[in-house]
Amino acid sequence: MAHKVAILGASGYTGAELIRLISQHPNIDIAALGADRKAGMRMADVFPHLRHLSLPTLCKIDEIDFSQIDLCFCALPHKTSQEVIANLPGDLKIVDLSADFRLRDPAEYEKWYGNPHAALAQQAEAVYGLTEFYRDEITAARLVAGTGCNAATGQFALRPLIAAGVIDLDDIILDMKCAVSGAGRALKENLLHAELSEGYHAYAIGSTHRHLGEFDQEFSLLAGRPVRVQFTPHLLPVNRGILASTYVKGDAEEIYRTFEHAYRDEPFVELLPLGEAPSTHHVRGSNFVHIGVTADRIAGRAIVIVALDNLTKGSSGQALQNANLMLGEDETAGLMMAPLFP
Amino acid sequence: MAHKVAILGASGYTGAELIRLISQHPNIDIAALGADRKAGMRMADVFPHLRHLSLPTLCKIDEIDFSQIDLCFCALPHKTSQEVIANLPGDLKIVDLSADFRLRDPAEYEKWYGNPHAALAQQAEAVYGLTEFYRDEITAARLVAGTGCNAATGQFALRPLIAAGVIDLDDIILDMKCAVSGAGRALKENLLHAELSEGYHAYAIGSTHRHLGEFDQEFSLLAGRPVRVQFTPHLLPVNRGILASTYVKGDAEEIYRTFEHAYRDEPFVELLPLGEAPSTHHVRGSNFVHIGVTADRIAGRAIVIVALDNLTKGSSGQALQNANLMLGEDETAGLMMAPLFP
Amino acid sequence: MAHKVAILGASGYTGAELIRLISQHPNIDIAALGADRKAGMRMADVFPHLRHLSLPTLCKIDEIDFSQIDLCFCALPHKTSQEVIANLPGDLKIVDLSADFRLRDPAEYEKWYGNPHAALAQQAEAVYGLTEFYRDEITAARLVAGTGCNAATGQFALRPLIAAGVIDLDDIILDMKCAVSGAGRALKENLLHAELSEGYHAYAIGSTHRHLGEFDQEFSLLAGRPVRVQFTPHLLPVNRGILASTYVKGDAEEIYRTFEHAYRDEPFVELLPLGEAPSTHHVRGSNFVHIGVTADRIAGRAIVIVALDNLTKGSSGQALQNANLMLGEDETAGLMMAPLFP
Amino acid sequence: MAHKVAILGASGYTGAELIRLISQHPNIDIAALGADRKAGMRMADVFPHLRHLSLPTLCKIDEIDFSQIDLCFCALPHKTSQEVIANLPGDLKIVDLSADFRLRDPAEYEKWYGNPHAALAQQAEAVYGLTEFYRDEITAARLVAGTGCNAATGQFALRPLIAAGVIDLDDIILDMKCAVSGAGRALKENLLHAELSEGYHAYAIGSTHRHLGEFDQEFSLLAGRPVRVQFTPHLLPVNRGILASTYVKGDAEEIYRTFEHAYRDEPFVELLPLGEAPSTHHVRGSNFVHIGVTADRIAGRAIVIVALDNLTKGSSGQALQNANLMLGEDETAGLMMAPLFP
Repeated sequence: MAHKVAILGASGYTGAELIRLISQHPNIDIAALGADRKAGMRMADVFPHLRHLSLPTLCKIDEIDFSQIDLCFCALPHKTSQEVIANLPGDLKIVDLSADFRLRDPAEYEKWYGNPHAALAQQAEAVYGLTEFYRDEITAARLVAGTGCNAATGQFALRPLIAAGVIDLDDIILDMKCAVSGAGRALKENLLHAELSEGYHAYAIGSTHRHLGEFDQEFSLLAGRPVRVQFTPHLLPVNRGILASTYVKGDAEEIYRTFEHAYRDEPFVELLPLGEAPSTHHVRGSNFVHIGVTADRIAGRAIVIVALDNLTKGSSGQALQNANLMLGEDETAGLMMAPLFP
Repeated sequence: MAHKVAILGASGYTGAELIRLISQHPNIDIAALGADRKAGMRMADVFPHLRHLSLPTLCKIDEIDFSQIDLCFCALPHKTSQEVIANLPGDLKIVDLSADFRLRDPAEYEKWYGNPHAALAQQAEAVYGLTEFYRDEITAARLVAGTGCNAATGQFALRPLIAAGVIDLDDIILDMKCAVSGAGRALKENLLHAELSEGYHAYAIGSTHRHLGEFDQEFSLLAGRPVRVQFTPHLLPVNRGILASTYVKGDAEEIYRTFEHAYRDEPFVELLPLGEAPSTHHVRGSNFVHIGVTADRIAGRAIVIVALDNLTKGSSGQALQNANLMLGEDETAGLMMAPLFP
Repeated sequence: MAHKVAILGASGYTGAELIRLISQHPNIDIAALGADRKAGMRMADVFPHLRHLSLPTLCKIDEIDFSQIDLCFCALPHKTSQEVIANLPGDLKIVDLSADFRLRDPAEYEKWYGNPHAALAQQAEAVYGLTEFYRDEITAARLVAGTGCNAATGQFALRPLIAAGVIDLDDIILDMKCAVSGAGRALKENLLHAELSEGYHAYAIGSTHRHLGEFDQEFSLLAGRPVRVQFTPHLLPVNRGILASTYVKGDAEEIYRTFEHAYRDEPFVELLPLGEAPSTHHVRGSNFVHIGVTADRIAGRAIVIVALDNLTKGSSGQALQNANLMLGEDETAGLMMAPLFP
Repeated sequence: MAHKVAILGASGYTGAELIRLISQHPNIDIAALGADRKAGMRMADVFPHLRHLSLPTLCKIDEIDFSQIDLCFCALPHKTSQEVIANLPGDLKIVDLSADFRLRDPAEYEKWYGNPHAALAQQAEAVYGLTEFYRDEITAARLVAGTGCNAATGQFALRPLIAAGVIDLDDIILDMKCAVSGAGRALKENLLHAELSEGYHAYAIGSTHRHLGEFDQEFSLLAGRPVRVQFTPHLLPVNRGILASTYVKGDAEEIYRTFEHAYRDEPFVELLPLGEAPSTHHVRGSNFVHIGVTADRIAGRAIVIVALDNLTKGSSGQALQNANLMLGEDETAGLMMAPLFP
């Protein structure tokens, strides 16, 4: 029998992406769609590309009968998510897509997000949701915190290398480029088509982006000592895709072998031949991660490039992958569609 | 047991799109990929977005053992296709995506395409592949000729109206807008990113586009008298999507009711509420067709707008839909993925 | 000595475009920049592309000393513009870029814009600002009402033909495609990059767009009888450019000769060879209009295609062209820059 | 009296950009346009955006009477350029836009470009054309070698810092992002709209791009010791613009003061306030360079971001700036147009 899920925040891009993916899942039914601001609207009016699906009408979150729900996806804005989750049933399985449960240390949360955490009990039980590295914990978890899309991308590039000790931990540069959907559907002047299209720029420069909290936490934990990377996000004038150009000091062939070993059984990670570079165009709309490694002309330096779709593998695809584990489904169910190219 | 198919012309966009779709089909295996120019290459090098799939290496067409093939997709250029198909086994099921078998009258073919037809025997048995209107013929066919993407779009807008006699046959204007992938992967200066991006223009103006041959044939057949539409294609600076703005003389509400009746059981056709307009963005990467009807302020005039994905419903999706019928599969198998938005 | 101008509404796209153009004008100085919401900000922070210019700080409109101003450009939103202009000095030369003074009949204004007109005295003296057709009136005017960008484009296609009586007045279809900057810098969900990029759709279908008020007024005046065109605007996923595909009944060669005669001395209008089609890409960022005429295969029908830059010739370039006339400058001053391609 | 110039390679993007710029120059006339492959064509057919200009018909290079030419721009492909220039009159002033005369050491040229140099005499007298740093030499030069667009961008970020000794010379990373027009108008599959649009990828990874020859030469010369940077170019899905994210070890405030000093009198270089980041969108179509400096959270590290238009300041604008110096014109003549935004 199919699992019943609710999606809170169904009027945003990650909510819509969840619906797109679940519409192809053999064993999951969407039982409720929460969206407080647009409650009462039909999904066909909020996202006309989902017009062909039979979906529940959008409703207020407090109208949902969670006793009928097997798992709840929270695709709500940061801060709202923790307030909502604090009031959900304590035994409800939850996959949260916001930043609210990613950082283990409440002080770190407050440092990066500016407000004290409002759901400390739930935070204590949350499992960090980067599937490939927390598979067992996620399978057993009640509450999983999906990673940031920048954070996911950077960790695919660096976790195996830090764990294996094959790069210099004090000289890591992450030059990140992310598509505009990463900023959501918010009404901001800098997200208008006329402002973004044909342009390109960096933001949150000087390593001030909030996703650094995740890098600091995860890389330091892995290394057993503090690790601080340099991280500069840039905004790409495309709708989907994120690409990390990662500059490390280490031997390219050793790095390559480390990846071969780390990712050899991963269904969604594709390691390109040594010296080749991935493109965001080749992972669009899919749950795949493409990774390339190249030696620099300067001995002892390498560049690792990772491409994935920020809305799929970087957010909603990862969320479904985690939900599959939590529900006892095949991890890849609903997620094997090929990228859309061109 | 799964059906075995071959795809000829696997290095072009419609070939790649077929592979993307079939990779999600429960009962079709790809047994051979033909691509004379790129024979010997791995698909991962020709289309890196398909890197995760286990696919046959590209080969020359004459290296394929067609006795092991249940159905062959021909995604070859016009003219090449008829030459190849003339030499394929006479009992092999074929879905052709080129223009070569769309026109029933060899004189019409020569008029629009400039060369005499080289496979008249096969042409005589070919069935026109617009699934929604030729379902029974296609189910029984050996050779199906996929429609042009402009031709498909225009026919979704006009066939039910011509058949029902609810519009003036002498005053039909099709203002068509098609994405660049419709022109294929050919090396032409006017298809370069720098030439197209940020621009917009018409081409084949004055109703000189070859797809008019299909409109003339099909609409005249339906009406039982010659019908000649005005048709102006424009090139959109996007990769996928085609939209027809169709200006007709008739009553909008009668037109709407005609569509309701014609498409009420169609799994891929979505009729929008009267007065709403579809967008190519909302059908991207899917096999769905969105149709909108609006009355003009001038009494007795209406505009019908149709949007679909030129590579999917306009070409490879339609081809798979036809193959499903020919192979006894569910017509929608492998084709129910939701559009990719944003 | 240079003329001193003020620009009200300097924080919008048409305001910024005026500054771009005037920065190359030999005899105009910008003395004041009004922008109530962003008063106090430096232009470099509102529009960083103008960073290299020495410009006044943005101020509130009532802080401007209009006694020092020779001409005032109003690039304010509709409705706001009439309220502001009603309170400006009665002898101040004004070029208004809003819709507020385009319609001569206050009842028509109220019909299309929904509110009664609040500056009837000024409306009575306003001259319609389509330079090529109102040159003498504009030269002598105090208040000139810039045309809508759709309205300008459609009139370049149709005015000479209506005036010469060479087309059927009862069967004119304007299929218009406009870039997103035409919608301004407003914070609307449907103007976000993620919503628009890669998509294409019609809006204000059924001939309900407000610019029809201008078409009705001008075409009826020219013809000496009511003329009602069908007009469907579409939104292009590009930042600049507008293209009208105009379907008329008439002889293409006679139409072509009519244009040759009408535009033979116009510095900004380029008539392409018969049978060729213009592209928005080839007029980008310039004040030029490209016009193409082609006969349809159906005798007695023709298509006229007009391309211009909606922000330049369709708005701010036209405004400067009119200001040049009003100030006794060469009409082309500051406006002869070549289009930006690619 | 106006100077007469010839442009060789007028059918490419840098040739067209030269014409666009010169069309606004008060003292330069275009006397000849060379384009061997398209000789005999009118410019309006090769680049319709230049339709409004009176320009010479394209001709073969050997049909040009160079005795009537004051200065010749060579916008030819690499390798062709040296062969052509070797045969031009020895006293003709030349601005070359190709790579052929950028490297002083013929062995370095052969190493990076793969063929022995065929015009060693001319190479010996060539001056490197980065105007801001070679102004006096260019003013006195007969033959000036325009820089690569990547090379120009990187040097604006690094030359003053290397000269002032304020950064670690052994740890410089240039993460470069360039628009597609940088690759020219060549017919290559990877330059098609459908391949590039919506995607993003790196190329020439591992510091193998030819422009490294220029960096090595110039930075080592400045430093008085070998300097080798890491340089990774990426392809942006936009038509114009290049942005360098430069990671250096040094004090951000000292770096900022160094730039203030170095660029304080430069008409085309805009230094943003400390901590702000430039966008390619804000320099589009102009000759301006925008530079931003930000301190990283890790003490002693900084990021320098430079944005310019690859076709203008990165190529044809730089070429005209150099020609102005060589012809005794004001350095900024024809080059002060504001960027085109949006």
